Amino acid sequence: MHIGMVGLGRMGGNMAERLRAAGIDVTGYDANPENSEVASLAELVAALPQPRRVIWVMVPAGAPTAAVLTELEGLLDDGDVVVEGGNSHFEDDRTNADSLAAKGIGYVDVGVSGGIWGRENGYGLMAGGAQDDIELLMPVFDALRPEGPRNEGFVHAGPVGAGHYSKMVHNGIEYGLMQAYAEGYQLLEARDDLIPDVGAVFGAWRRGTVVRSWLLDLMVRAVEEDPGLDDISGWVDDSGEGRWTINEAIENAVPVPVISAALFARFASRQPNSPAMRAVAALRQQFGGHAVKAAETETPAAE
Amino acid sequence: MHIGMVGLGRMGGNMAERLRAAGIDVTGYDANPENSEVASLAELVAALPQPRRVIWVMVPAGAPTAAVLTELEGLLDDGDVVVEGGNSHFEDDRTNADSLAAKGIGYVDVGVSGGIWGRENGYGLMAGGAQDDIELLMPVFDALRPEGPRNEGFVHAGPVGAGHYSKMVHNGIEYGLMQAYAEGYQLLEARDDLIPDVGAVFGAWRRGTVVRSWLLDLMVRAVEEDPGLDDISGWVDDSGEGRWTINEAIENAVPVPVISAALFARFASRQPNSPAMRAVAALRQQFGGHAVKAAETETPAAE
Amino acid sequence: MHIGMVGLGRMGGNMAERLRAAGIDVTGYDANPENSEVASLAELVAALPQPRRVIWVMVPAGAPTAAVLTELEGLLDDGDVVVEGGNSHFEDDRTNADSLAAKGIGYVDVGVSGGIWGRENGYGLMAGGAQDDIELLMPVFDALRPEGPRNEGFVHAGPVGAGHYSKMVHNGIEYGLMQAYAEGYQLLEARDDLIPDVGAVFGAWRRGTVVRSWLLDLMVRAVEEDPGLDDISGWVDDSGEGRWTINEAIENAVPVPVISAALFARFASRQPNSPAMRAVAALRQQFGGHAVKAAETETPAAE
Amino acid sequence: MHIGMVGLGRMGGNMAERLRAAGIDVTGYDANPENSEVASLAELVAALPQPRRVIWVMVPAGAPTAAVLTELEGLLDDGDVVVEGGNSHFEDDRTNADSLAAKGIGYVDVGVSGGIWGRENGYGLMAGGAQDDIELLMPVFDALRPEGPRNEGFVHAGPVGAGHYSKMVHNGIEYGLMQAYAEGYQLLEARDDLIPDVGAVFGAWRRGTVVRSWLLDLMVRAVEEDPGLDDISGWVDDSGEGRWTINEAIENAVPVPVISAALFARFASRQPNSPAMRAVAALRQQFGGHAVKAAETETPAAE
Repeated sequence: MHIGMVGLGRMGGNMAERLRAAGIDVTGYDANPENSEVASLAELVAALPQPRRVIWVMVPAGAPTAAVLTELEGLLDDGDVVVEGGNSHFEDDRTNADSLAAKGIGYVDVGVSGGIWGRENGYGLMAGGAQDDIELLMPVFDALRPEGPRNEGFVHAGPVGAGHYSKMVHNGIEYGLMQAYAEGYQLLEARDDLIPDVGAVFGAWRRGTVVRSWLLDLMVRAVEEDPGLDDISGWVDDSGEGRWTINEAIENAVPVPVISAALFARFASRQPNSPAMRAVAALRQQFGGHAVKAAETETPAAE
Repeated sequence: MHIGMVGLGRMGGNMAERLRAAGIDVTGYDANPENSEVASLAELVAALPQPRRVIWVMVPAGAPTAAVLTELEGLLDDGDVVVEGGNSHFEDDRTNADSLAAKGIGYVDVGVSGGIWGRENGYGLMAGGAQDDIELLMPVFDALRPEGPRNEGFVHAGPVGAGHYSKMVHNGIEYGLMQAYAEGYQLLEARDDLIPDVGAVFGAWRRGTVVRSWLLDLMVRAVEEDPGLDDISGWVDDSGEGRWTINEAIENAVPVPVISAALFARFASRQPNSPAMRAVAALRQQFGGHAVKAAETETPAAE
Repeated sequence: MHIGMVGLGRMGGNMAERLRAAGIDVTGYDANPENSEVASLAELVAALPQPRRVIWVMVPAGAPTAAVLTELEGLLDDGDVVVEGGNSHFEDDRTNADSLAAKGIGYVDVGVSGGIWGRENGYGLMAGGAQDDIELLMPVFDALRPEGPRNEGFVHAGPVGAGHYSKMVHNGIEYGLMQAYAEGYQLLEARDDLIPDVGAVFGAWRRGTVVRSWLLDLMVRAVEEDPGLDDISGWVDDSGEGRWTINEAIENAVPVPVISAALFARFASRQPNSPAMRAVAALRQQFGGHAVKAAETETPAAE
Repeated sequence: MHIGMVGLGRMGGNMAERLRAAGIDVTGYDANPENSEVASLAELVAALPQPRRVIWVMVPAGAPTAAVLTELEGLLDDGDVVVEGGNSHFEDDRTNADSLAAKGIGYVDVGVSGGIWGRENGYGLMAGGAQDDIELLMPVFDALRPEGPRNEGFVHAGPVGAGHYSKMVHNGIEYGLMQAYAEGYQLLEARDDLIPDVGAVFGAWRRGTVVRSWLLDLMVRAVEEDPGLDDISGWVDDSGEGRWTINEAIENAVPVPVISAALFARFASRQPNSPAMRAVAALRQQFGGHAVKAAETETPAAE
């Protein structure tokens, strides 16, 4: 099999390597000419065998993906298939698919999980699309996913959009999991009189416990590399998929107190002197008096 | 009527003034000789008319309150009444009352709300104790509480402990209210393209709206004094009663997502580089690769 | 002054009455002929004095509002003004305004607070729009808003959209306030050994306390009418504005743990046997064994 | 080696079997004579080799554990060691240890994780106590813990109390993890138009993804046994350790929004018509009018 890969960054580049290692030919295009194997998308398309050319798009969500899809729509033909493997919103998938369908071009959305470890371990894959497009792509999926039973690392989750919807929910869960471990980390650290080595406790949770997981393994690894996590800042970014998860939860009246708490903790981590907390401080000052700390011999003004 | 007041700080001092303005004699004792009208608790007790001496204790919760109560137990007699008007935990009230009861001394716990405004506006009062002790104290309560119907600013909430329990819940609610306004404040401020004057919007909520309240009035006052709240830090302290509220909620299996969120927001405001958020950042780095920001032309490593 | 009012339901009808009581002529149209004073929007428009006809639209957000605006666009002319007083999303206001502006028709969005009490007490008003449109409408605003200083019950919050944005945030805050009082209510009720009369405690918070507010007054009223709140179900609906508040918070990276917790509590109140909690129960069963309650003499399987 | 095991319920009984399979002799005592191998604790103690008898206590936390420890204190001697393997609060460990230390009896607290799977897979173990007591017990720990490197399934976490503190935090994390998966489960289920088979998506997350874990494997197992989780109720109990985690977090000013949200979701799952939500409903009715659903042609009373 021979496919095209658009976007040879950390994800696309690694995926291309894993595909080739599995015997799949990949021609790669990147907007940066230094990384690209062909000069243009047109050249990429021209390099692929017909019929049923397959192009896997792995560029940032939003405008970059939209630009690539628009250009591909002009270059591809009936029976070809575009795979959107980036982080598009699942509702954009429907729009994308409809647009390409007018020319008979298939569209499959794939949520890809695994980060930088995927090249070696394989990627968790969640796909949405038509059955025959999925079947055409199965050798590609089998090469990318981890070894083991197919249904433990790949799912044809449903129609177009189901892949990215599943990935969005996956990431929402992930936010909650990370924050749960992080709260536990701080709780252990807060009692260094009892727990002299937080990393050793996390390390001992790797086997037999209820909380064992891959994220736990990574946590142990992080603490081994940097005990105390002193070299890292508590400023935490967020990608769009956590936000989309909350929006979608609200749309469907699904209570998501944990996932939202995890997202808001990230927001708050980037606002050390937030307007909201200044407002709370201002209110306390208004009713409690201007002195911030009361002397030992008097009762602080009651709240 | 003539009572003793122990603790002449911001709360006790103001309360003594309000009592005197209402025609109640107050002899005041403070650990700080410069503020005290008598040299010792013994002198204070000796200055009060018998029978049924009344001593209102208004010192910081914990050890200071315990020390005063222990000393008073040795000085007072059958029929006298001690009022604990500070912020004791409601479970300590039961212990205090039992100890004093052995000598026939009454004990009334009173939650006092109103902050520095109470001297002029009157204090909201929640009392716990025996009916006859409450009746003895009623002239004092009537002098301290705001004008208007008695049951709108005073309640005999129940037996010993009920006053401080009510005050604890009052403060828990207060945490939630303050955080709700604060989140709204930040939401308005975040869209300064639409809302050029956040204070004007808060100001307009004072009449007719569902959110009008005394805290809202204070919010307007705070923004009038310091538009943008630039002179105040977003570091927010917490007193014990918010914490007790959560502990008590957990004891009774009462879900308190709002009150706890408000408390945790305060905790987080004091931890700009928290261990938990460093743990989240470390996890993201572990699975997503070491680069924190991905270039425009590549897909960030999927979470 | 003489204006048209479209929508004579609980809000629009009451507002028309308050306006008339203040000396403003109102011609009212309602889709229900039994409530309507004119047979059509065209008749309504024809009944108003020129130039600068004013039509206040007070119909449900979404399709009903859109239909009315579209029809009015065909009926009105340069210099006329449409007021959207319903619950439109603030982003729709911009679209509405642009569409009407093509014909020179002004557009003002007004967030209206106060519920059924507004007819008597006046409505809290937050307006967005152009300065000259606001000035034209000022007699209407002054009639609708509560007595007292104008800036305590009315605000020209900013350009088109600012009125509904302010109202959206107002409602988000309101969700948080209500949930805070509700958690306090349950905390008091949980300790009926200490607090025999929850309503009495709430009642005593009306004067002097930090938590006094109009919502508190309503809470007291509710408990007076139905002690124990036995006649009401704990199933709580939500209107769109709470949801929009969270979405907008996420858009602007504003942490809103309290407002979201309040919204999710409402969602959960409508899901007594939720899929999420069945999933938690299923997990507990998986690792802890099938028996749900362990006997006294054995340790439950550790979590 | 030969030890005594007190409590032969699901945990103690399974652990005894795993120990014997590893060549450790175990004499077991249970309050239920039908399960017990000896007639009394005295007989159990008499059956063990001296010096340095080892008794592992595995009975419910609280009064049952306290009763066993008190009786053992009278039966054991200098150099013997009691292991508290149940779910005691870490602060009780210090008290227990001090009491036994007066007679020279050692005390080790061990948090045990793994549930009913531990017998086959091994148990995750977190121990607190003196170094020489831990060393004495090492053959027992090695038999109970999973195969693999010792430090991946066992930790000497610190002094007395550190074992149960670590286990408490472990369980707090576990609450958060479970709720995160559960929210994801409901989000997938809510869109059955996109995701026809929620179990298949969870199943595909087992390899390669960021969220893979043992709890995820259990989730897949649960859905395989009962697709739709229809046979299970969304009523979720909680054990003490989740509550203790929050209390301890509050004591140390550690924000735990995720763990607390998970605990409160369990509380709420058991309160389908909660007082708090009745209070919210009552407030809505007060300001919004008595009709619960507004007709299509009118604007609902604004909140």
